[in-house]
Amino acid sequence: METLKGRDLLSLADLTSEELLQLLDLATQMKAKKVNIRCNKVLGLLFSKASTRTRVSFTVAMYQLGGQVIDLNPNVTQVSRGEPLQDTARVLDRYLDILAIRTFEQKDLQTFADYAKIPVINALTDLEHPCQVLADLLTAKECFGQLKGLTLTYLGDGNNMANSLMLGCAMVGMNVRIASPIDYQPDSNIIEKAKAIAGDRTEVTITTDPITATKGANVVYTDVWASMGQEAEADNRIPIFQPYQVNEQLMSLADKDAIVLHCLPAHRGEEITDEVMEGSQSRLWDQAENRMHAQKALLASLLGAD
Amino acid sequence: METLKGRDLLSLADLTSEELLQLLDLATQMKAKKVNIRCNKVLGLLFSKASTRTRVSFTVAMYQLGGQVIDLNPNVTQVSRGEPLQDTARVLDRYLDILAIRTFEQKDLQTFADYAKIPVINALTDLEHPCQVLADLLTAKECFGQLKGLTLTYLGDGNNMANSLMLGCAMVGMNVRIASPIDYQPDSNIIEKAKAIAGDRTEVTITTDPITATKGANVVYTDVWASMGQEAEADNRIPIFQPYQVNEQLMSLADKDAIVLHCLPAHRGEEITDEVMEGSQSRLWDQAENRMHAQKALLASLLGAD
Amino acid sequence: METLKGRDLLSLADLTSEELLQLLDLATQMKAKKVNIRCNKVLGLLFSKASTRTRVSFTVAMYQLGGQVIDLNPNVTQVSRGEPLQDTARVLDRYLDILAIRTFEQKDLQTFADYAKIPVINALTDLEHPCQVLADLLTAKECFGQLKGLTLTYLGDGNNMANSLMLGCAMVGMNVRIASPIDYQPDSNIIEKAKAIAGDRTEVTITTDPITATKGANVVYTDVWASMGQEAEADNRIPIFQPYQVNEQLMSLADKDAIVLHCLPAHRGEEITDEVMEGSQSRLWDQAENRMHAQKALLASLLGAD
Repeated sequence: METLKGRDLLSLADLTSEELLQLLDLATQMKAKKVNIRCNKVLGLLFSKASTRTRVSFTVAMYQLGGQVIDLNPNVTQVSRGEPLQDTARVLDRYLDILAIRTFEQKDLQTFADYAKIPVINALTDLEHPCQVLADLLTAKECFGQLKGLTLTYLGDGNNMANSLMLGCAMVGMNVRIASPIDYQPDSNIIEKAKAIAGDRTEVTITTDPITATKGANVVYTDVWASMGQEAEADNRIPIFQPYQVNEQLMSLADKDAIVLHCLPAHRGEEITDEVMEGSQSRLWDQAENRMHAQKALLASLLGAD
Repeated sequence: METLKGRDLLSLADLTSEELLQLLDLATQMKAKKVNIRCNKVLGLLFSKASTRTRVSFTVAMYQLGGQVIDLNPNVTQVSRGEPLQDTARVLDRYLDILAIRTFEQKDLQTFADYAKIPVINALTDLEHPCQVLADLLTAKECFGQLKGLTLTYLGDGNNMANSLMLGCAMVGMNVRIASPIDYQPDSNIIEKAKAIAGDRTEVTITTDPITATKGANVVYTDVWASMGQEAEADNRIPIFQPYQVNEQLMSLADKDAIVLHCLPAHRGEEITDEVMEGSQSRLWDQAENRMHAQKALLASLLGAD
Repeated sequence: METLKGRDLLSLADLTSEELLQLLDLATQMKAKKVNIRCNKVLGLLFSKASTRTRVSFTVAMYQLGGQVIDLNPNVTQVSRGEPLQDTARVLDRYLDILAIRTFEQKDLQTFADYAKIPVINALTDLEHPCQVLADLLTAKECFGQLKGLTLTYLGDGNNMANSLMLGCAMVGMNVRIASPIDYQPDSNIIEKAKAIAGDRTEVTITTDPITATKGANVVYTDVWASMGQEAEADNRIPIFQPYQVNEQLMSLADKDAIVLHCLPAHRGEEITDEVMEGSQSRLWDQAENRMHAQKALLASLLGAD
């Protein structure tokens, strides 16, 4: 993936469709140990929010590449002590080879990318979660052989997951349907962008109706109804989101070979039932594992390792 | 130690006596650099309590094996955000090669082991502290040549150290005497288990009398009177535990070649006097170092490295 | 740098002038990749204060040497739980190969060095910041070819930076002028020590006058007016320190080829203006990068790597 060398991944749309598909191919090969890419580089993790999967999957991915990781937890650095982001970015640029950032605002991520010459990866913002979608698409590809023509239905909060799934599905030729309560629909700019990418090749549907959205779907996807930082309104959201719960009744509407994905952590009995989560259609643990493989391919590509 | 490959170490009693002795032999060889085992694996540390020795000794042990470590401090992960343990366990299982857990309840450790296929190590629970006892037995073996027939006296709180020492001593053919205040005696199930292991080969004595317990002992062992989480009652405990203080007067009752062990950190002037801690019978720093060697042997064995 | 093997760096004055110059030469060679020193060792970082630059630069330096790092953040260890420093020092000595400490009191650092046989590095105390000065001198050497005869003017708080700069400049034959408000002058013992080192070869000037101090200077240096832990009095300090601000007017008094250094993080509009910080005389980012190169040379030398 020579073409990605030195670039940033702030949005999934920073990639072309072809680059995204090549990245997924590389991840498949790396997972199957058909390629052995080594790089003696240092990845920095700058996470302003808690993280299990993202932190561990990036760290182990980098270790398996032969690289090293430094965890720039804001509690133990001065990033939170009022140093302007552009100064922190320029300093870290001098020490690190690549940087993954989990923060709130996309513009803070953009500032880092503007001031650091090293590759910067979006490891979750309020707007997007592209690394998760790399893992999601990898999982769907493993289950169905190819992505083109599949239909993914996302049910619940029109958050960063919904945003990045719209982009990712459109880019690989999948139909995507987002079913969210009227006040919780995805970012309108990203809807437009996904529709522009999809053109008339595939469908990008935004709806409030979970029933029609799920009919015939190949991939049924959900996420927590209240993300980190929204705990206060979690209780208020439950009745609003209840119709979007992924349960056995809803799953009966999907394609009979449909798989269920969730980016975790899950709140059993809220957005997904225990039965579905532990059921035969669940691919949650493979999906979690694929974070590591997808990110390993991404790191190797951005670093230009071979 | 091919037989340990892929297994867990939740309790010292998960090992047979022979396996325990072989593990100590391997640690001795590794410390003497007579074997050079390398493994390119990743150890996760999931510690719900503060730790210096355990964290550093595990980390350096893994580094010396050529492996990597990821510190899953609950403050920076979502483990504390209400994700069920079985979900966290299944996700970590996909990323890591081996996992050491420091937590409160033995049942939480058991849940991890049940849901993760990778080896899980007890790095301290309220019930047991097997890795410390590996180091303790290694230290005694270094001092006395062999363990069989030695007498270890533990004075103080009948806590996880007392529990694991009873098991470990019984397994290697040492006599063990626990002298604790009447309300602070060790776990009754573990007493029974240790007595069953000891059979009529060695002595497992539980007493409230520090004087007779110490007479002729080869190893005198103590621990803080109030462990992490019990700070509130620490002052109340002082008068109750005072008779169990390891001081020069008590040490005069032990064998003249007796050694003193303490799993640290120590509260000088409480469970042990400064004189004894800094005296010629103290083996505290060798004992601390042996955490690293013993755990290196354990990691290599559970990983099946060679 | 065979002569530094096994030694501590608690104060810059622990080095001879010749050793300091050799260390800077080694750093230059390592930065230019003219030497490739590898060491399979473990560095411990024990930081009681927040840190970005120091933590990351030490970590990456050690990684680039092929070594490993363990972050002994006091929040996750028991160092803060009342264990005497001498006990912690003796235990860490058994696990680690080298230790960098960031703490408040120089005497705590000294206690660690007294009880640990491994090399101990001062990574910032209230009294000194020698590793920063290694980077500062390396930066000046890169800009001017040689250090001897240059004049460095430090403006602002007579803190640990002022202290270590006095020593470092005197040792390498640079003139040093410290311009600080009357109640904020550097440590009087270190002034005496710097003057003794300087002898009549170079100038060590302590003044309250920023104007005369800056005239003809080759290196103009400043630091925040209130360091970590002094935030409460930060507002009171602003009017007192205002005359010492490094701005374009003050810079017009320095040598026309003068460079500006700042150990970061900077408070724009307080001790330094945005114009100067982003201007053509600023060498702040090279200076930050040089932390890594200087410390890599230091680590390799203290470890006796080759």
